[in-house]
Amino acid sequence: MGHSIFIVGDWGTSRLRLFLCDGGKTLETLEGPGIGKLSASPEETLFELIAPWQEQYGKSPITLTGMVGSNIGWQNVPYKHCPADASGLNGASAHFTARGTEIEIIAGLTCTNALGSPDVMRGEETQVFGAMHLHGELRTGRHLVCLPGTHTKWAVLDEGAITHFHTAPVGEFFDILTKHSVLAKDAGPITAVEPDAFIAGARKGLEATQPGLMHYLFETRSKQITGEFTAHQAGSWLSGLLIGHDVAGGRAIYGEDCAVGSITLIGTEALAALYLDVFDLAGLDGVAISGGATVVAGLRLLRSKETADAGL
Amino acid sequence: MGHSIFIVGDWGTSRLRLFLCDGGKTLETLEGPGIGKLSASPEETLFELIAPWQEQYGKSPITLTGMVGSNIGWQNVPYKHCPADASGLNGASAHFTARGTEIEIIAGLTCTNALGSPDVMRGEETQVFGAMHLHGELRTGRHLVCLPGTHTKWAVLDEGAITHFHTAPVGEFFDILTKHSVLAKDAGPITAVEPDAFIAGARKGLEATQPGLMHYLFETRSKQITGEFTAHQAGSWLSGLLIGHDVAGGRAIYGEDCAVGSITLIGTEALAALYLDVFDLAGLDGVAISGGATVVAGLRLLRSKETADAGL
Repeated sequence: MGHSIFIVGDWGTSRLRLFLCDGGKTLETLEGPGIGKLSASPEETLFELIAPWQEQYGKSPITLTGMVGSNIGWQNVPYKHCPADASGLNGASAHFTARGTEIEIIAGLTCTNALGSPDVMRGEETQVFGAMHLHGELRTGRHLVCLPGTHTKWAVLDEGAITHFHTAPVGEFFDILTKHSVLAKDAGPITAVEPDAFIAGARKGLEATQPGLMHYLFETRSKQITGEFTAHQAGSWLSGLLIGHDVAGGRAIYGEDCAVGSITLIGTEALAALYLDVFDLAGLDGVAISGGATVVAGLRLLRSKETADAGL
Repeated sequence: MGHSIFIVGDWGTSRLRLFLCDGGKTLETLEGPGIGKLSASPEETLFELIAPWQEQYGKSPITLTGMVGSNIGWQNVPYKHCPADASGLNGASAHFTARGTEIEIIAGLTCTNALGSPDVMRGEETQVFGAMHLHGELRTGRHLVCLPGTHTKWAVLDEGAITHFHTAPVGEFFDILTKHSVLAKDAGPITAVEPDAFIAGARKGLEATQPGLMHYLFETRSKQITGEFTAHQAGSWLSGLLIGHDVAGGRAIYGEDCAVGSITLIGTEALAALYLDVFDLAGLDGVAISGGATVVAGLRLLRSKETADAGL
């Protein structure tokens, strides 16, 4: 016992999720602070968290993805250039030993996006490869994947490789606008949107590419002043406006891919549901895949031993 | 002496500027805290500030404009609906007496903007009427006025009246993105932009209506990661992107008015200069008028007695 035990983890800016695995089974999970919120070094933080696991199973190898591999993380792992398939990405991982334990950090990806600008991701590539592992049909042909979140990613897959992608800071926008702007600062946390206001915002967002997003934003505030919106409705409207604007952009940038088949959505259930609503309004097909499952599947796939075993 | 003495003030969210006037002459000025930053009531704050003036000149009447007339101000003065000329706006002022002193608060304006949404302003209307007073040619015919700032206003004038206007929260966007977003958080205060980065951003902003602003924003960050931008360049680029996006929107919304003549810019010298650069790139004509002068001119014009004297 113990030789098939390993640990994988998604260590993003705002949180760490660790999974203790025995081959294909997840035995236990742990949560910890994000790489942007540490009070000790990444090494200290990690080994303190997994001490009980090491006591029981020994120094099992650890594979990590996300911002842990950035210049604010544990070790700055250079980005792998697109196109990248699972084996190519795996080959770009960083390997080192800490406290007698093998550590592997998955590389992020970089590309020139469809609008001609440099673009980067760390962590989402692992989810995309996990989705391919779980849903074999994504490994052949061409597919458009949308990963809504703080920095929403739109990624194009071709024959099992990520060819290029694009970032829209939708979640961050919503967050800073509701926290720091006069536009919707009393909206409160949007755990559940007000459906009518959300859809109204989404319709506006889908049209908002001309004249432009900023010329539609002030309505968030003015309709509160005129009494047409409560603060919560204003927040829901803003959420719809931003997601609508993002989806209109995705449709404009990836029109051909949108027309060919369903867009694969990878994210939390709540956020994926909002995007699916807006896809409907935009006349697009979408299929949602749970974000949580794709992380573990991707990490299992990408860790060196597993990749070798799978013959990828 | 004393009968022609009066006080006017622009009391916005972030600062108060008071002017002691003797007819057409400004004798003294004072600065105080904005209506959003008070530690005492508006009444206490004001009378403490002007105590030396009252000691010397007695209880001269006071006329105020800006957020002082909002629901976070001293007295909530209902918005006057557009179209509004100087006399109509003057008739919508609130009048009351405090500590034996006549107080007048100028109403803000509301309209349905060119995109069909409710819109509001408080304070900018005073600047626009001040500009008309200082530049008589603005009182006849049709003119497009741009007031760049925290909430940039685009306003259409027709025969001396403000017929409708539009708000784009350009300055607030820039402020919260540089303070709270990972996009350009180390940009530092943009007292002087880096010209090349600003122009590059402005070009992108002018094109950014399709796919959409949010799809161009991440370049602010990715070009720092790839080493193409310093933090300061990223901030300058972002400033250009946002102003370019705003000007493209203004051109899209008010195309006919843009084509007919020069756009009148009312604002600080530094901000007006940036907008003039972007007007150039966009093929638009602009003429800048000092914002400071228009406030006092507008307040002198709009205060009841002055308006009556001028026969408006």
